[in-house]
Amino acid sequence: MTTWARAKTTDGRVLCGVIEGAMLHPRAGLGSDEAAGDAVALEGLRMLPPCVPGKFFGLWNNFKAAAEKNGWGTPEHPLYFLKPDTALSGPGDTVVIPEDAGRVLFEGELGIVIGKRCKNVPVEDAADAILGYTCVNDLTALNILTADESFPQWTRSKGYDGFGVIGPVIQTGLDWRDLVVKVNVNGRERQSYEASDMVFGPEEIVARLSRDMTLMPGDVIACGTSLGARPVKAGDEVVVSIDGIGDLPVTMA
Amino acid sequence: MTTWARAKTTDGRVLCGVIEGAMLHPRAGLGSDEAAGDAVALEGLRMLPPCVPGKFFGLWNNFKAAAEKNGWGTPEHPLYFLKPDTALSGPGDTVVIPEDAGRVLFEGELGIVIGKRCKNVPVEDAADAILGYTCVNDLTALNILTADESFPQWTRSKGYDGFGVIGPVIQTGLDWRDLVVKVNVNGRERQSYEASDMVFGPEEIVARLSRDMTLMPGDVIACGTSLGARPVKAGDEVVVSIDGIGDLPVTMA
Repeated sequence: MTTWARAKTTDGRVLCGVIEGAMLHPRAGLGSDEAAGDAVALEGLRMLPPCVPGKFFGLWNNFKAAAEKNGWGTPEHPLYFLKPDTALSGPGDTVVIPEDAGRVLFEGELGIVIGKRCKNVPVEDAADAILGYTCVNDLTALNILTADESFPQWTRSKGYDGFGVIGPVIQTGLDWRDLVVKVNVNGRERQSYEASDMVFGPEEIVARLSRDMTLMPGDVIACGTSLGARPVKAGDEVVVSIDGIGDLPVTMA
Repeated sequence: MTTWARAKTTDGRVLCGVIEGAMLHPRAGLGSDEAAGDAVALEGLRMLPPCVPGKFFGLWNNFKAAAEKNGWGTPEHPLYFLKPDTALSGPGDTVVIPEDAGRVLFEGELGIVIGKRCKNVPVEDAADAILGYTCVNDLTALNILTADESFPQWTRSKGYDGFGVIGPVIQTGLDWRDLVVKVNVNGRERQSYEASDMVFGPEEIVARLSRDMTLMPGDVIACGTSLGARPVKAGDEVVVSIDGIGDLPVTMA
């Protein structure tokens, strides 16, 4: 069980490393065994998104309960879009709801973080390609998604600055089947569902996506959301929590 | 008029710089005025994609002739998807058609390369945010795009390794209204259309996309294709050419 994090020091240095107790132990890179300097007290560090994904995938229609309620069929392959690099945000950040975005929903999700460059991974080897798991808030501008009948605008509706929240850490050694994804808004529980209800589990997702393209260390795959996603407004405190990973708060503005 | 390129030396160094005559003059970074070492003869260098985009957008339905022929409406905002980082390839590369991808089409396009970090750029200032233009071959697995009725798979169908070909250079100082995009397959002209037929021109595209999210130096926006995109097969030599930019060849395998 290793807990990976990224953080910024008061003098502006960005550290990537492993949390032990109240200290961050810097490492040469994500997943690296090589130490890179002295341990730093977490107190006084500002936590950042725990990795900087080259690819940030989001899955749609990957939970049986949501598919059943919404009358969606069962996909034959994971259905996914990409969130842009500039959408990335982390624990404690403030995310601005753009004026022309209409209704914006939170979506609490489990995020897979890739640990190894991989292509065409057999499903039985896929767990080895996964570094660990993080929490994701896949913010979505619902009216933009459906604004053009001929072209669902997945990237645009989910791509505003800050709309891809990940963190607080990447936790290794978890069994995703045990995890429960919860979202609290202003202290009230609004979403709570079991990861085991997925259509495609993480190993299957990694195996199938690695048939489509090469996956790289630090790539993030948000596994899709289940029932309970709701609109947020300026001032809302939205916290995605997964026991074993931690709490991922953002403030909407 | 400046011609930007990236290339690899025989000893494996990657250079980014400006082409003058038969020499590449290395610079500190894309768009930088700062020299970074001695000029190197182009002969013996392997050309790379001329930049490494953090975001690689593709537009759909941005040419009036294609919209008219296909009975598509006129979009109110550019309709776009993202191609993944691992899709990037460059001049002279070999692109493998995946076994399960079905029919793969070339799409010759004009590519905008962003020169400055920008957000909410007014359309009258958008030209300043554009470094220059490149050729794009936006390879697309057509059967994958439409394989699921509930979810058009833009990212997957356009995201296979190597499916985002750009180059050979980034050319500054061009008026896009003068440009003609051509594609030759095995020496036979298959696509030829005027960039001036765009629904949203580059300044309008940059202004509108920068309202959706922050654009960064090196981001590439493929402006969409017009009539004439066709399937390719293993062994085909596909060359996208734009006078004033150059020829962008790939071999399908």
